[in-house]
Order: sequence, then structure tokens, then C-alpha cells
Amino acid sequence: MSAGRFPTDVYASRLRAAAAAAADAGLAGLVITPGYDLRYLVGSRAQTFERLTALVLPASGDPTIVVPRLELAALKESAVPELGLAVRDWVDGDDPYALVGQALGGGTPTTAVTDSMPALHLLPLADVLGAVPVLATDVLRRLRMIKDAAEIDALRKAGAAIDRVHARVPDFLRPGRTEADVAADIAEAIVAEGHSEVAFIIVGSGPHGADPHHECSDRELRAGDVVVVDIGGPYEPGYNSDSTRTYSIGEPDREVARRYAVLQRAQQAAVAAVKPGVTAEQVDAAARDVLAAEGLAEAFVHRTGHGIGLSVHEEPYIVAGNALPLEAGMAFSVEPGIYFPGEWGARIEDIVIVTADGAEAVNTRPHELVVVPV
Amino acid sequence: MSAGRFPTDVYASRLRAAAAAAADAGLAGLVITPGYDLRYLVGSRAQTFERLTALVLPASGDPTIVVPRLELAALKESAVPELGLAVRDWVDGDDPYALVGQALGGGTPTTAVTDSMPALHLLPLADVLGAVPVLATDVLRRLRMIKDAAEIDALRKAGAAIDRVHARVPDFLRPGRTEADVAADIAEAIVAEGHSEVAFIIVGSGPHGADPHHECSDRELRAGDVVVVDIGGPYEPGYNSDSTRTYSIGEPDREVARRYAVLQRAQQAAVAAVKPGVTAEQVDAAARDVLAAEGLAEAFVHRTGHGIGLSVHEEPYIVAGNALPLEAGMAFSVEPGIYFPGEWGARIEDIVIVTADGAEAVNTRPHELVVVPV
Repeated sequence: MSAGRFPTDVYASRLRAAAAAAADAGLAGLVITPGYDLRYLVGSRAQTFERLTALVLPASGDPTIVVPRLELAALKESAVPELGLAVRDWVDGDDPYALVGQALGGGTPTTAVTDSMPALHLLPLADVLGAVPVLATDVLRRLRMIKDAAEIDALRKAGAAIDRVHARVPDFLRPGRTEADVAADIAEAIVAEGHSEVAFIIVGSGPHGADPHHECSDRELRAGDVVVVDIGGPYEPGYNSDSTRTYSIGEPDREVARRYAVLQRAQQAAVAAVKPGVTAEQVDAAARDVLAAEGLAEAFVHRTGHGIGLSVHEEPYIVAGNALPLEAGMAFSVEPGIYFPGEWGARIEDIVIVTADGAEAVNTRPHELVVVPV
Repeated sequence: MSAGRFPTDVYASRLRAAAAAAADAGLAGLVITPGYDLRYLVGSRAQTFERLTALVLPASGDPTIVVPRLELAALKESAVPELGLAVRDWVDGDDPYALVGQALGGGTPTTAVTDSMPALHLLPLADVLGAVPVLATDVLRRLRMIKDAAEIDALRKAGAAIDRVHARVPDFLRPGRTEADVAADIAEAIVAEGHSEVAFIIVGSGPHGADPHHECSDRELRAGDVVVVDIGGPYEPGYNSDSTRTYSIGEPDREVARRYAVLQRAQQAAVAAVKPGVTAEQVDAAARDVLAAEGLAEAFVHRTGHGIGLSVHEEPYIVAGNALPLEAGMAFSVEPGIYFPGEWGARIEDIVIVTADGAEAVNTRPHELVVVPV
């Protein structure tokens, strides 16, 4: 087992399950270019763009990797050699899309492609196949969403690492320091606590906290600020952390404290709603209903959460309109927020894993507004 | 003008030229999701994935940005507000593809999309439009390939910065140090010499130099190693450097010196072949012919070069089969290499800009094998 991936039999089993799902869906097979699906299926971190690399997984028959000869050496880092996949290499001047067509074999014309396949490859592939592919998302969704024991273990380790970073955040939040100063300290702590890199850092102080996607700025912190800190990154073999806590520099005023307490109840209600059979939108509604009952419906401007794993944002999305029933092994964020433009904002976010009868939170830092003494 | 982009009128002019090119091609318009084309056209560095952000540029009529409400604030960093583009924001639950269709207006059904548009957006967009789009590459190619004065200036600055790094590389190459040690020093130097970040670092020593896409490893350098160092990164406002030099730790043996001299002549011949009207494949052949005449044709396993600008790899590709005639303002690498598996490799790479009567190299370090005394 390489440090950067799971044992080979994990990938062999995923490939079998993906081919079976493609057969069930009546597809000729799957074509997977570099991205999270390729990493999930064969442990490859390839990032080629203009030269086609693709895993071709027929619904029946043996999988093939189509790869530029230049990238052959990089394949050794993946599970491909140990899996014994057929390798069809090509050089500049060859038609790699024809190789994909051959590797799929004949039969049904409908092929599914990974959601990140760029138009650059998708359009010529559609020409060669004589049919527009469909998204492989439907076929791979269940596989990618239901985490196995190794993946859950990886998510727990990532969660514990980001909790250790949040435990250190109060030391970084001092009046007179800028959001960028704080973000630099957090970046160092994210890596020091075991992540392989930083994926994102949001430090939204005062009015900046009212923009859910603010990153950081040269604004100086001051006493009385409410500060949203939303941070995460990948932890080997590549599963992500993502946790938000909200901090108050000095004691918050009464109205801030009152509204924050409602947000905290909303986040608890959403986590409490999680169990197998409940739908994604019911979890979203659980948070939204608590806020609405206190007149804060308009302040909650985004969905309640997103799935997480190799990608920071993946299925299931915890959003109105998503009637997907939860199943044990799903992992997603529960992160309601409230935003008051020009004034302040707050958000509380844990990653939870659906268990047989509820939810296990991988983040365990206190949910209260964290008051940093000044 | 923001530090990260050109003055607004540069983008206004590019939008007009792109719309005119779309009209000439008989297209309804262009749909550009985040990536280099979007950055080229409106100076946006957006990197959204699952929520659609798209510039809709009809062949006639006003352009529109379709954007998730959550991402509205980030648009302020781009030229969009100063350009006065129409903004159609959407929230989870809306159909952003229908908004794209409306912004395109009626008329001809054929739309062109940016080459990086992921299948996730391309396939539902094709459904809404009722026709499979084509690649916008053909429409944008000439615009993106012919660099304007501001872009050429940016490429020159990036080239001078990476030359300063290569000037320091001999100090990093000491027997007993690992390729990874050297790469860490180079990473620091790339940023210290003015790049905004590191894009790639290849340190291929001894047999690793025979793999053109080797990155770096824990192999220790030793006397007698030939070392390929291929490095680059973006320089604000985002134009890339990319230069390769080959080093010898101690004096090279005679056969290495002989073959390297042939490679140096091949690289010179290719640069000398560059001028308006010559085709991309003629430049490739100029390098290849010199190597073939000395029995080294089989050792040169990749194309001679790639265009460069906002992206490290873009058109024009300097490769057999590409009959594109060069024009003044094009910028690309000239980088023949020779590779002897299990033994050693060498490559020489400059970025050149096509001028009215030849080529201007933005890299000016000596092309000889650099002997590092031991």
C-alpha cells in the first residue's frame, strides 16, 4: 500500500461495483478522465488536461486505461499496475478517442462520463461514439456517497485534525491583526496538525462575516467583532476536513447572542434529524424551520450542507428539492448560517456520518459562540 | 486597474472581438464557464465547480454573466462591474441553464463552449439548448494566441524572473542532496524572484532525466549526474514562465557531451525556423531533422513545444500535423529533448515570441550544458 492510497483490493472491488452499476443502468460503460472519480476508482491523482487520459470501464469485459505515453510513468503511482488493467498508450498524432471507442467494445451506444470531463474531450468523444454521453454521476453516486470503513476512518482523522486547529484559533484572533494575518496562522496550523495541504480558509470579521463566501482581507479585527472561521483541507489519503465555528472578540451584544442561540438550535435540530430513511431536504428543513420560527428565515441564504470525501463538495447535497433518502455511510456537512449584510454573520458547521440510527459528528468542538477575551 | 488584471478597456476590446468572431463563425454565441477563457475575457479568477457561473456572449446583443448569488461578491474582483455587464444571479433550486438559454436569445441553435466546461454543465446545457455545442476553441484561438503588447510585456517579465532562478540553480545542485531538496530551494527562489506561485518543478537526475514528466524524488545527486531542471510559474497578472536547462554535476563524459551538442543545435535550428508564415509543424521538423541526422530521432519522444500565456499549455502546439501558420504575437516553448531510458536525459527550453521577421526569446540563459564543479 502506497501512502497516498488504499490497498489494491479496495480499488478492485470499486471497479467491479462500478461496472455492475453501469450494466444495471443499461450503459455500454463508463469513461473516466482525471478527477475525483478516477482517484476513487484506481487511486490515480493524474491531472492531465489537453492530452486524453481515460479509464474505460465497459459494463462487461475488462477495463482499459488509455494514456499518453508521456504519462505512463506517473501511472505507477496509482493502483493501475497492481490491478493489472490493460494499458493502451498513445503518442501525439494518434486518435485517443478511437482507442476509447475500441476499449468500450460494441453494443449499446450509451456511455456515461465523469462529471468533470472537459468539453475538450467530451465533444470529440461524442463524435467518435456517435452519441452524446450521459453523466456517470447517477451510476457512481451511490458508490461515492456510501463511505466504506477505510473512508470513514479517514474522515474522522481529518475531522480531529481540523478540531485541533479550531482549538488554536482564539490565540490568533487579536484586535489590530488583519484577517489575512489570522489566515496565515491558520494555514500553518492546518498543515502542522497533519493535513497534506490547505484547501480553503475563510476569516470573515464584522460585516465580512455576512458574505458566506468571503475569504479574507486586510480588514483589522476590533473588539466587538463577530468572526466566522470556516477551514479545511485534505488529510492523507486525501479525505477532507471542513468545519466552521464563529468567534466573538469580547462579549457579544444581546441581540447577537440571541440570534446566535437560535442558529445553534437550528444546527442541533438538523443534526438530530439525520438518520437512514430521512431525506436530504428534511434535514435542510429541520434547520430552516427553527430559524423561520424566530423570524430568521431570510437570513439563511444557502443550503444546509454538502457531501464530503475526496472532494470538499460532493453528493449528497442537503438542500430543498433533494428527496434522496439518507443511508448509513453517507458523510456531509450540516452548516446553517445567518447573515446580516453590512453588519455581521455566523455559521456553525460539523461533518456528520450517517449511522444505523442517527449521526456521528466527526467534529466535536463546542458549538457555542466562542468568546475571545480582550 | 486591480493588481491582478489589465485595465478594463483591454477586456472590453476582447469581448467585442470574441463576439465578432462568433458572428463570423455563424454561432448564436459563446458560453464560457470559469477557466482561462473567462479570465482572458473578463479578468475573473472564479473557480466554481458544481454551481454554474457562465459568461454568455451572444454573437449580437449584450453579454450577460449568469452567477450563483453566493458568488456575486467575488465578481467584484473581476472587470465585470466596470464593464457594466448584465448580471443574472440565481439561487439553489433555480435552473441556471435556462438563464443561459435566455441570455443567448433565439436564432441559430449552435453555441460554442469553453474547452474546460465540465460535462456536469455541458450535458444539461445541451439539453436546454436542444443542440450539442461545439468547442469555442476555434473562435477564441486566434484571440488567445496572438498576444497583445500588455501580454508580451507580462511574458517577458515572467521569463526574466525564471532566468534569475536558473542562474541560482547551480548553487542548489550538490552531491548528496536529494532532488526534493533541490526542488524545495527552487520553489523558494521562484517566489522570491517575483512569481505569484510555483506551477511546476521537474528535477530529473541521472536515469530520472530520461522520463520527460518525472517531477522529483528522494534520489540523491552524485558526481557524474546529468540533471534536467524544468521550472515555471505565473507572474502577475497571471502569465507563465517555463524554462528548462540541463546541468552536469562535474564534467560530462564524451558521449553525453556529443549528444548534448546535437540537442543544442536542434533547439537553435527550431528557434531559427520561427517566423510569420512558417507552420507549427515546420518548427517541430526543424528540431527533429537535426536529431535524426545524428541518429537521435528515437530519443526525442515528445512534441517540440506548446503555446503559453495565462495557461502553461495552450495553442499553438508545435507538433507534427499542425499546419497552422505562425503569426507575429504568438508565444510558445521550443523544447526538444533527448531521453535514454535507465541512463540520462536532456532538454533545452526557451519561450519565444513570434516577431515580424523571426523570434524573440524571453529566456536568455546560456544554452550549453551547465557544468557544476564538484
